[in-house]
Amino acid sequence: MRRWQGLLAWLMAVCMGASAQAPGAPTRVEQRGEQRVEQWDVFEVQLPGPSEGNPFAEVQLSARFSDGTQTIEVDGFYDGDGTYRVRFMPPRPGRWTWVSQSNRWPLTNKQGAFTATPARAGNHGPVGVRNTHHFAYADGTPYKPVGTTMYSWAHRGEALEAQTLQTLAASPFNKVRMLVFPQTAGTDRHPPELWPFAGTPPRNWDTHRFNPAFFRHLEQRVRQLRDLGIQADLILHHPYDDKREWGFDSLPRELDDRYARYLVARLAAYRNVWWSLANEFDFIRTKTDADWEHLGELLQRTDPYGHLRSIHNGKRIFDQSRPWITHVSMQHGMAAAEASRAVLFREAWRKPVVFDELKYEGRHDRRWAQLTGAQMVNAFWATTIAGTYGGHSEFIPDADGLIWLAQGVKLRGDSPARLAFFKAVIDAAPAEGIDPIDTFEDLFIAGQPGRYYLVYFGTQAPTAWLPRLYLTGLRDGQRFKAEIIDTWAMTITPLAAPLQFKPEGRYHFVERSGQAVKLPGRPGIALRLTAVDTPAGPGAQPAHDD
Amino acid sequence: MRRWQGLLAWLMAVCMGASAQAPGAPTRVEQRGEQRVEQWDVFEVQLPGPSEGNPFAEVQLSARFSDGTQTIEVDGFYDGDGTYRVRFMPPRPGRWTWVSQSNRWPLTNKQGAFTATPARAGNHGPVGVRNTHHFAYADGTPYKPVGTTMYSWAHRGEALEAQTLQTLAASPFNKVRMLVFPQTAGTDRHPPELWPFAGTPPRNWDTHRFNPAFFRHLEQRVRQLRDLGIQADLILHHPYDDKREWGFDSLPRELDDRYARYLVARLAAYRNVWWSLANEFDFIRTKTDADWEHLGELLQRTDPYGHLRSIHNGKRIFDQSRPWITHVSMQHGMAAAEASRAVLFREAWRKPVVFDELKYEGRHDRRWAQLTGAQMVNAFWATTIAGTYGGHSEFIPDADGLIWLAQGVKLRGDSPARLAFFKAVIDAAPAEGIDPIDTFEDLFIAGQPGRYYLVYFGTQAPTAWLPRLYLTGLRDGQRFKAEIIDTWAMTITPLAAPLQFKPEGRYHFVERSGQAVKLPGRPGIALRLTAVDTPAGPGAQPAHDD
Repeated sequence: MRRWQGLLAWLMAVCMGASAQAPGAPTRVEQRGEQRVEQWDVFEVQLPGPSEGNPFAEVQLSARFSDGTQTIEVDGFYDGDGTYRVRFMPPRPGRWTWVSQSNRWPLTNKQGAFTATPARAGNHGPVGVRNTHHFAYADGTPYKPVGTTMYSWAHRGEALEAQTLQTLAASPFNKVRMLVFPQTAGTDRHPPELWPFAGTPPRNWDTHRFNPAFFRHLEQRVRQLRDLGIQADLILHHPYDDKREWGFDSLPRELDDRYARYLVARLAAYRNVWWSLANEFDFIRTKTDADWEHLGELLQRTDPYGHLRSIHNGKRIFDQSRPWITHVSMQHGMAAAEASRAVLFREAWRKPVVFDELKYEGRHDRRWAQLTGAQMVNAFWATTIAGTYGGHSEFIPDADGLIWLAQGVKLRGDSPARLAFFKAVIDAAPAEGIDPIDTFEDLFIAGQPGRYYLVYFGTQAPTAWLPRLYLTGLRDGQRFKAEIIDTWAMTITPLAAPLQFKPEGRYHFVERSGQAVKLPGRPGIALRLTAVDTPAGPGAQPAHDD
Repeated sequence: MRRWQGLLAWLMAVCMGASAQAPGAPTRVEQRGEQRVEQWDVFEVQLPGPSEGNPFAEVQLSARFSDGTQTIEVDGFYDGDGTYRVRFMPPRPGRWTWVSQSNRWPLTNKQGAFTATPARAGNHGPVGVRNTHHFAYADGTPYKPVGTTMYSWAHRGEALEAQTLQTLAASPFNKVRMLVFPQTAGTDRHPPELWPFAGTPPRNWDTHRFNPAFFRHLEQRVRQLRDLGIQADLILHHPYDDKREWGFDSLPRELDDRYARYLVARLAAYRNVWWSLANEFDFIRTKTDADWEHLGELLQRTDPYGHLRSIHNGKRIFDQSRPWITHVSMQHGMAAAEASRAVLFREAWRKPVVFDELKYEGRHDRRWAQLTGAQMVNAFWATTIAGTYGGHSEFIPDADGLIWLAQGVKLRGDSPARLAFFKAVIDAAPAEGIDPIDTFEDLFIAGQPGRYYLVYFGTQAPTAWLPRLYLTGLRDGQRFKAEIIDTWAMTITPLAAPLQFKPEGRYHFVERSGQAVKLPGRPGIALRLTAVDTPAGPGAQPAHDD
């Protein structure tokens, strides 16, 4: 019986010229009956097709997926050796049918169906913008980025890459910024084994043909990050081909477009993908603002899932108001060092702001990698008070010259442990996100009005604080549990008694007793106030023009 | 002979149905021979025409002016009593001819000519953007705004308005933000004598008919500001009809458009006009972002001279990247208090940033008017170091309840004298403008690299500073004259000997002697460094990606 079933399946596959499954080990496929793929996992159609000529350039393939109410068209791609694939991330459970289109008859009008099963624990779908300045997964679960950057970790071979994954698994980081194209740095000791185009380094490329093995490897790493709960912030272009050795930053627009479309076709079905158009876009001298505009719009138009899109700057900030930019990916260490600065970018663009580069913890002769661990940790807390997000990396070479920023492998800095502590605090904060409470004066208090406050004293080392909160959302007599957080020592010390507030003046509430909260006189101290009761009636509100 | 000439002129005027001249006392007209108007002054054509129906709505009038190489079309306007006017600001000297068009025959195909004479001393033309972040007059002279706000100074009657003009003449201010439409505040003691529309307050308006007397009065004040060398930053809309008494903020778009066009037709020929679409646009609840976008584009399209355009915010910042916004008119006291903050808005939009509202010097129960004079002065210096501009006003009621912010009349604060001193320093700075030298770390030095530096210590009160400048433009051995500026005491104290610099490390130059400059240990201290010699060879340059 089972042999006949197998034969039948084989015959059907031959007849339809297609086999469909979820790629790679982690996705789940029912082998009997109609295929089943979890919602927001990757469903894949595999189709045999022509290998003559240049399939990357000449063969168009797409498929329409429909569950009866929504139809989504996705591009397929050539994976070498006469094999074509179409990948699809079902956005909701239910039965989906598909049908292919192509300019080659063996790929045309293939069809099939599968069932998307409800997402299981740990699968929250792709991340999008929520509440203007924050992020959430598709299922509504808040996503609070604590990112790190390791440009070339996926270009360093199995041994090192496996170690990097181990390190990440034990780290607080839930987002990784990483290059698609290799960079020069580190290639002397660890030359890339795979290259994105057919040919050989340094310059013997056929840039009209992708190297499927390179992209298969990349997507394996993306999948592994996904299974660790880590977003893959993929950087499409960068200026780190230092000697202009390979020239991937100098392709004509037609090939840049094909590359972007190929990435979308291969990777957009992975729910943890984000698109970063460039790292330090303004240092890439071969492209203009119009090129970036074109690429951003291309990604917006072609990615059927609308994964997050950003463009990271060197010294000149891109016009972050452009509609295709979903969130601000900022390099600005000076701004990230103080909440009163970081918040201004948030107000300027009314989008989420992620300080993906706020300088690095490190011991480099370049001043962009000279932060102490304490400065790195301070920047995370300061950007949080600003209602924005920080980003980590480090430049601390080990004996072999390995550097987290470039290669990943091992973390050596003082900040990651404190960022794990930071993450635990932030994850326990309100789901809506942490927002500045009042930016009319120097900003050091954030949270959700009337419910939750983080008071952060930054590099100051006060010995006391007289409680005073901006009025919004507060009620006369409302009490708050108060805890002193030492962001460096990683301790949380509750005060003996709750603080009780009363209105004072036109703008504020103060503590009833009039007594100051004693603080330890060290830098990096925060106070967390959590409402323990909420008297009836509406909270206080400022005048709209006050 | 002269009687015959006069008769001839009269006959010609009757035949052409037009008389042309420069309006008001300050402009210069040759009475004999062809008319002469100074470049960038106002040339005016006066035409008799129909007064029946509603000329404001029904009569279209424009004229084409040409000097043979450039043709500029400007709209005319109805000034009541059967009189129409077309105004033109000649952008360069030479002979200009004009011809009118209209949908009414008495106004059609009138023509004439005049000679624009070269601008005389003190007439530099209209102000535009220069060097991305700065301003200059049309003749290239730098314009460095030291602005103030007096919303309703031109709605308070001859006696008070004459006093205000006297005060301005003796003040450092070279820009005034002022409302076109009246505001509620102050009208109990000083009710407006003139209203923008036909009818009577509070609500008996014919909003389809302007009141020419109101606008004649307004333009008289604009002209008087011009003759004092002061820019008139005219605010078209505001939210200060507190009780919704008059309803000028609630007109339909058609009438808002007509109002904007009427202002352009009447006032654009005055070289000192700027257009501020709104004060606190987000507090005007009767208009949407799309309305502002429409109005901004309308002004951009219809103002033949491209006067500066901005939109001032309350709590929510407008998208300042919009192409019709020529410069940022910002309300943000927190940002303006420190150079390291203010500079971020400059970087965000790459346009000039004017902190037109950075809180006010005053003694109000509202916290937006509680700055000390020292805080106001600090904000001007801090925004200057940021490569941006400050803006003054004060809320210090006199015995009669008069307040500069609302009525003008008299200055009572501590800051204006210090702003005069500030202006003298800034006017003597390089013509290109003052730019931040290095924003990678906390920003407190600005100027022009290798030539001129202002080092400003803000609210700190250091007793010494070890000279250290970012390398750009500096030469080994270069010497600078150094002066200590006390921004409050208004003193400039030169050091005994020049400072001589040498390179140190990857990024900086330091003083050769290694000795610190002694400082007075007070807040508000700046150091001015001016190159006294420049060794041969190119100045130092940082790596582009450093």
